[in-house]
Amino acid sequence: MVWNTNLRWRLPVTCLLLQVALVVLFGVFVRYDSDADPHWIDSKMQQNSTSDLENEFYYRYPSFQDVHVMIFVGFGFLMTFLQRYGYSSVGFNFLLAAFGIQWALLMQGWFHSYHQGYIHVGVENLINADFCVGSVCVAFGAVLGKVSPVQLLIMTLFQVTLFSVNEYILLSLLEVKDAGGSMTIHTFGAYFGLTVTWILYRPSLHQSKERQSAVYHSDLFAMIGTLFLWMYWPSFNSAVSNHGDAQHRAAINTYCSLAACVLTSVAMSSALHKKGKLDMVHIQNATLAGGVAVGTAAEMMLMPYGSLIVGFICGIVSTLGFVYLTPFLESRLRIQDTCGIHNLHGIPGIIGGIVGAVTASCASSDVYGVKGLAIAFGFDGFKTNWNASMQGKFQAAGIFVSLAMALVGGIIVGIILKLPFWGQPADENCFEDSVYWEGWAPAPCFNKPST
Amino acid sequence: MVWNTNLRWRLPVTCLLLQVALVVLFGVFVRYDSDADPHWIDSKMQQNSTSDLENEFYYRYPSFQDVHVMIFVGFGFLMTFLQRYGYSSVGFNFLLAAFGIQWALLMQGWFHSYHQGYIHVGVENLINADFCVGSVCVAFGAVLGKVSPVQLLIMTLFQVTLFSVNEYILLSLLEVKDAGGSMTIHTFGAYFGLTVTWILYRPSLHQSKERQSAVYHSDLFAMIGTLFLWMYWPSFNSAVSNHGDAQHRAAINTYCSLAACVLTSVAMSSALHKKGKLDMVHIQNATLAGGVAVGTAAEMMLMPYGSLIVGFICGIVSTLGFVYLTPFLESRLRIQDTCGIHNLHGIPGIIGGIVGAVTASCASSDVYGVKGLAIAFGFDGFKTNWNASMQGKFQAAGIFVSLAMALVGGIIVGIILKLPFWGQPADENCFEDSVYWEGWAPAPCFNKPST
Amino acid sequence: MVWNTNLRWRLPVTCLLLQVALVVLFGVFVRYDSDADPHWIDSKMQQNSTSDLENEFYYRYPSFQDVHVMIFVGFGFLMTFLQRYGYSSVGFNFLLAAFGIQWALLMQGWFHSYHQGYIHVGVENLINADFCVGSVCVAFGAVLGKVSPVQLLIMTLFQVTLFSVNEYILLSLLEVKDAGGSMTIHTFGAYFGLTVTWILYRPSLHQSKERQSAVYHSDLFAMIGTLFLWMYWPSFNSAVSNHGDAQHRAAINTYCSLAACVLTSVAMSSALHKKGKLDMVHIQNATLAGGVAVGTAAEMMLMPYGSLIVGFICGIVSTLGFVYLTPFLESRLRIQDTCGIHNLHGIPGIIGGIVGAVTASCASSDVYGVKGLAIAFGFDGFKTNWNASMQGKFQAAGIFVSLAMALVGGIIVGIILKLPFWGQPADENCFEDSVYWEGWAPAPCFNKPST
Repeated sequence: MVWNTNLRWRLPVTCLLLQVALVVLFGVFVRYDSDADPHWIDSKMQQNSTSDLENEFYYRYPSFQDVHVMIFVGFGFLMTFLQRYGYSSVGFNFLLAAFGIQWALLMQGWFHSYHQGYIHVGVENLINADFCVGSVCVAFGAVLGKVSPVQLLIMTLFQVTLFSVNEYILLSLLEVKDAGGSMTIHTFGAYFGLTVTWILYRPSLHQSKERQSAVYHSDLFAMIGTLFLWMYWPSFNSAVSNHGDAQHRAAINTYCSLAACVLTSVAMSSALHKKGKLDMVHIQNATLAGGVAVGTAAEMMLMPYGSLIVGFICGIVSTLGFVYLTPFLESRLRIQDTCGIHNLHGIPGIIGGIVGAVTASCASSDVYGVKGLAIAFGFDGFKTNWNASMQGKFQAAGIFVSLAMALVGGIIVGIILKLPFWGQPADENCFEDSVYWEGWAPAPCFNKPST
Repeated sequence: MVWNTNLRWRLPVTCLLLQVALVVLFGVFVRYDSDADPHWIDSKMQQNSTSDLENEFYYRYPSFQDVHVMIFVGFGFLMTFLQRYGYSSVGFNFLLAAFGIQWALLMQGWFHSYHQGYIHVGVENLINADFCVGSVCVAFGAVLGKVSPVQLLIMTLFQVTLFSVNEYILLSLLEVKDAGGSMTIHTFGAYFGLTVTWILYRPSLHQSKERQSAVYHSDLFAMIGTLFLWMYWPSFNSAVSNHGDAQHRAAINTYCSLAACVLTSVAMSSALHKKGKLDMVHIQNATLAGGVAVGTAAEMMLMPYGSLIVGFICGIVSTLGFVYLTPFLESRLRIQDTCGIHNLHGIPGIIGGIVGAVTASCASSDVYGVKGLAIAFGFDGFKTNWNASMQGKFQAAGIFVSLAMALVGGIIVGIILKLPFWGQPADENCFEDSVYWEGWAPAPCFNKPST
Repeated sequence: MVWNTNLRWRLPVTCLLLQVALVVLFGVFVRYDSDADPHWIDSKMQQNSTSDLENEFYYRYPSFQDVHVMIFVGFGFLMTFLQRYGYSSVGFNFLLAAFGIQWALLMQGWFHSYHQGYIHVGVENLINADFCVGSVCVAFGAVLGKVSPVQLLIMTLFQVTLFSVNEYILLSLLEVKDAGGSMTIHTFGAYFGLTVTWILYRPSLHQSKERQSAVYHSDLFAMIGTLFLWMYWPSFNSAVSNHGDAQHRAAINTYCSLAACVLTSVAMSSALHKKGKLDMVHIQNATLAGGVAVGTAAEMMLMPYGSLIVGFICGIVSTLGFVYLTPFLESRLRIQDTCGIHNLHGIPGIIGGIVGAVTASCASSDVYGVKGLAIAFGFDGFKTNWNASMQGKFQAAGIFVSLAMALVGGIIVGIILKLPFWGQPADENCFEDSVYWEGWAPAPCFNKPST
């Protein structure tokens, strides 16, 4: 089946309509929060604060910038591993993230920062918007190469909406802790994306098979993405944690988990190849699973050795997934997962939710101190009578809610995206920049195998 | 006409002379400011400050590093889009910036940090030196591929000097606000560079035309530059704003403007191509115009929706400029603008100046609070009797002063650079690394078009 | 001689054994320090601290992230200049660094953070672990292309151990100041690596000569590494300095030294080529020597002009080293130094140690203030009777201790690595990714010279 891939009117109209709507909604709803408003000087004096540093900006801004790099350079370049899809990987990721953060500021704002008719935005909203878009970037990995930018904008519109609902249920109704988003970002994003790509199944995708692999230099570009994700992940998992020790601890745990994950990924990659050679796919992806899997528990008392164990397991599981599970999903379950997000975000996300639930259940005032426990889990207000075991149960419930939202949402959005007029490429033109981009593509000689 | 491009003595002598002069001038003039001096412990105790965090370092250093990345990786890699000019783009940018920041520390120091015979430098000086060099990087974009490194050093010497004079007139004499440098950095840098390239007009440049375009991988390298500029621009526009809410607000506004700009750039890029395909040139450049255009107003009460509107307009204007204005400037006005800086820095810079003037005129104590207004615009000292409308007029005057300085300075410097002994390349050797670099260049097969 | 390079069991077993050992040791020894522990709220109240910002996290975390980028992207990509060794450069660097930081947390922890049976880790430990691994990355540069990943893990195991012992001797026994590690990181790392490569001398390495050079795009990838190292070096040298003015001053001095170094590197590179052309090797490496050489003195009162002079000298010395010394070392002393680390880390490291010793000797309470001097050099406790001249002598002793440790350690580790069963490549297969990596390599047409 051949679709019309000329986006001359569809893409501009979609972009302009969305952006005009965002301008209007921002005009009606969005204002600065008190730390970004010129009246801050007055409130500072009222609170007897002597230091400008007490502005939330200084607690969160460095972490925000690190997260920002992960979303745009990290995810964008990670996906440039495909030999003829570099423009689209980094360019469409740029487009969907730029739209998504605006829409997320509104959606998350209505749920979490809505006071007296206005959404009040500050640096923490910017971080959360980036987080929300992170889950879209994850889902993009599943459908990479097979969808048009119009489809991606539609998917982003719906996914950000569903993300915000799911996040609200988890964080505000179930009172779940999930600072690094193992459940809200990774589990939800991965299973949403997998469901969408399942609905969009292309039986003749093998016609594009020769382009669904890397060449030498595209793998090096992808390593830029991998490394910026890996290096800044401690900032990701600590960016919205409580001030002080929680932020500090989240960074340490993530650092440890990621380091362990590299060694076990390398070990499995070598062990699973008949000549013991390493596979760049595993190095680019499985090494990051440790960051996903401490997303919930990083700010808790997971302990450094606990983090190492989580990273240890995830490096193994994720690499095994790339070798055995991805081909199985494609051949048996008709799930065509371009980047293997099931191995990097799906399974590690669920592991992260479980680790979080177990760690929360084990919390005690021996370990956290009395005040520390109350602060860490918010055991005050209506949660005064909660205990660690209850928290653990709600954490576990969060995993199932996220999965359910992802599956139901993914089916609906997948069906919408299956409509034939979004400009999607034909099966033989997937993974090909020249469908949507003017200009050059790598000369054939660039693509010859040498081993 | 053929010039001698062997720089064996000219380049080393220029570098060494400049560096020796800098060493001597630093020896005579430059000292640490009080926050970087070991006596800081004494002044801290005098001020009853209990926290080491009150050191200016902690307010500005993370932003400084982001700005630093923008200057060296951002501008450097953005210009690697040319297929055979990657070494020069990133290497000459490195050279001129390394020289420029030293000279800027002195020039800006004499104007703004000169006390009791010494220039006192601290982290804010480092940021401002990077800013100053940013305007040279902008101008470099206009002459890219057509000048020798000796010419670039000469241009940097003069441009940093003129930048500092212009900045002094704007910030200190006209009391203009321009924290993100829409006027001082972008407008001045762009029109200075355009004037220089106009004077250096090469009628036979078409002989190098086949090299004045990208290949597949050079466009991906350029996206590294684009993304680091785009991601860190909130730090750029907020780096030297007042502590607290102003810095916070500047980051939010820039984030919003840039996000909107991406969608309208993509929309126009697609709409202007007969098959609706996107052009990497627009994605690499026009998406950044929103950051330029809130450079003046970002720290003011532009409001998030105001930022979106500015970004919205600039994405459209900038993309239109690449498609229609750049060819017109080259064919009719003899302005050969290699990177299209007129579209990314020129017009958006002027828009930014206007937006700043309008936003300042609309300032009121209703919006800012009484104290907030006084702090935001420095309405104290001799400005006690100023009001917003006066501030707006002075802001507008700043645009014209910057343009005048750029044009006059650009003509003088252009004439100096036109002298035949600077080692510039012949018309048929422009955009070619092998003129100035030992070693390899891409094999021809790498450059074949595929569409 | 041909070794078996199939690592199928050796690499996985090595990785898994090391990682299991690390998990056990972390379980027994590693706990959070007080600033990362939930009881921090209690200690904060005891100290009457009103602000969460007093947590060490906020002083050091932005610098930590910059250092982290230097280790993984900086060193990793700097070494991708080899045309067919990009996967290994960035991948093996990733592997050894991920293992090294864990082992360094333990080793350095036992020496410096061991209290009541536990190692207490916080953000400063993470920085120091990265620093320690930095010295392994330096040594990796000498053996690049000639060793297997198993050898690299073994080398890392021993080098981290020796580094920690040497660091303990210098910092704790000799009370040397070396915040940016001119001695502990660069001098030690470089001479250790050079000794190892000397022991591992390969008489027939010329068989791989055609691969021991760059191609056009590999040089651009390497510039990513160079620039991130260059830009973030101010954070490297200031990351563990005393709070406040010392951190501030270290950043300024490093910024100045690096800027000067670029100009003299460019000058020498051009002057030493018969047609005045620049060499990417010099731009990629010698421009960084200024950062190495202020590693010891950056936090002292080196003065901005002093920093410029250090950078000035190092740019010249380092470039001369690449042109004359590296070939001499290879042909006469049988030291095959792939990346020329002797020019970038060896000589500049020693210069840095000397500059530090001289600067420390010249310290006086006139320059530092009475309190400032005591704080800067820790002249209290048992050092109360020390003076600047004694400090200078101990600093100088630190250079010799580092050299001795490097030489002795390098010989032992070199001999261990010479054993024939580590999977090292044959002489004709050095600098070749396909030995250890599955997949693609650049097609031959990519490698043709054009000049």
